Amino acid sequence: MKPGFTGSPLHRLNLEHDADTQFAAHLADPRARLLRLSGLDPVADAEGALAWAALTDAPAGAELALLGIIDDAPRFVALDPAARGSMHAGIFALLTAMPAGEAALYATARSLVDWHARHGFCARCGVATAASRAGWARQCPACSTIHFPRTDPVVIMLAEEGDAILLGRQASWPAGRFSALAGFVEVGESIEEAVARELFEEAGVRVTDVRYVVSQPWPFPSQLMIACMAKVETRDLALDLAEIVEGIWVTREEVRAALAGDPGSRFAVPPPYAIAHTLLARWAAD
Amino acid sequence: MKPGFTGSPLHRLNLEHDADTQFAAHLADPRARLLRLSGLDPVADAEGALAWAALTDAPAGAELALLGIIDDAPRFVALDPAARGSMHAGIFALLTAMPAGEAALYATARSLVDWHARHGFCARCGVATAASRAGWARQCPACSTIHFPRTDPVVIMLAEEGDAILLGRQASWPAGRFSALAGFVEVGESIEEAVARELFEEAGVRVTDVRYVVSQPWPFPSQLMIACMAKVETRDLALDLAEIVEGIWVTREEVRAALAGDPGSRFAVPPPYAIAHTLLARWAAD
Repeated sequence: MKPGFTGSPLHRLNLEHDADTQFAAHLADPRARLLRLSGLDPVADAEGALAWAALTDAPAGAELALLGIIDDAPRFVALDPAARGSMHAGIFALLTAMPAGEAALYATARSLVDWHARHGFCARCGVATAASRAGWARQCPACSTIHFPRTDPVVIMLAEEGDAILLGRQASWPAGRFSALAGFVEVGESIEEAVARELFEEAGVRVTDVRYVVSQPWPFPSQLMIACMAKVETRDLALDLAEIVEGIWVTREEVRAALAGDPGSRFAVPPPYAIAHTLLARWAAD
Repeated sequence: MKPGFTGSPLHRLNLEHDADTQFAAHLADPRARLLRLSGLDPVADAEGALAWAALTDAPAGAELALLGIIDDAPRFVALDPAARGSMHAGIFALLTAMPAGEAALYATARSLVDWHARHGFCARCGVATAASRAGWARQCPACSTIHFPRTDPVVIMLAEEGDAILLGRQASWPAGRFSALAGFVEVGESIEEAVARELFEEAGVRVTDVRYVVSQPWPFPSQLMIACMAKVETRDLALDLAEIVEGIWVTREEVRAALAGDPGSRFAVPPPYAIAHTLLARWAAD
């Protein structure tokens, strides 16, 4: 199963050397299209795919970003410093119903527009910045610093002991929902070290081996989710109850039942677009 | 072989819930020590390990960050908005000569101090920010936004066809030096997608399969290096000459000779602290 938010039809452009030239040329292309968004949220067309408009539909004076090319047509999105988004269920219903790849395209646009909206000033000197590099950066007119969109790596992992894995529940989740533990990679850490630290902090378990499985982008706002398996020494837990209110060890049979939506299942799994679902499915299939 | 900049002796603190309390308590601990830096560069003690000072040696009024705990002693570093660093050979000679783990500890401190130095203003509203969360964030006094240190994920990979891998040379590198191709993960991409895009952009090769191998933090300024193998369809190259001035396909025997420092080798490999070295060594050992 392909992870959620991957498989975009977008051909990204190599903007390293001549972004301004490419931006101008694609802006003048009559085939150019503008992705419609509602704030940061997706807008569907009559067929349930992402909706597109003409470049002239962009708000007057709006900065534009060149997302890339689809079907020979340049694809832009308007930058909106006031754009705000949500994570309400309707967004996920819309994205799940769309053709494969549309959610991935939306994820790129959302993360990019959101980053611009939250980074309008130079972190180095405080002056208002302007979009540059075809909308893939912002530059400061005062100190010339170029700021690039951020992507925050997050590890998400299943501790494994014998034929069972550890799932946890956060207080804010729907009743019965359990998932893999997760946390941001900190500066100065490898993926393997972040996995070990997070599992010890959140569950008190000591990791002996880490194995990478799969990754996905997560556009709320802009994480790189790095899914791993981690062998641990024992099933004894010391939960950080401020993070994880309950931890359970579950078997492959139990994970398979939960993934199949068995009404008698001990727990409910995360939705298919979440990498935790992919990780559980890969482990269950082993 | 353990990747460079990993294996730090530092015990990181879980600062999620009570950072201010922990910061105050550790600041008052008579065992607390201050990491010495020269700008962003490392300072060695008489034994060649990282040098430490008393907290009272911090410049008057300097903000401090609590790095974590080593040997029961809290470890701090002073934040310096004027701190600048370099990547001269002397730094790497010093770090390579240090006990294992010291380079990793230094990497964390360098990335953190550097991030504070380059992010003194709120990217959301332009106002000067102050260190918060024990030095692991900055908060804006005007709009209350909390900014966290950034870690930029980078993919670095060996394209593989049959029993040969692709190495490239950048114009700025020492004569004869070849390494894995690499590039930043963009917003909206998975690791696997970034590997495929970068190999196509830089070398014109199409990827059919990506396998994660190993990772490391890289503190110049703050990357997460994600090392992968990628199977490709053919050895035909279309190099982006602005990035890669020469590409060569090399065999396992040739990589082993280069890693062993054979004077007759076709090429020289990156130094041991670079993840490309680890990646080459793992492949050569297969």
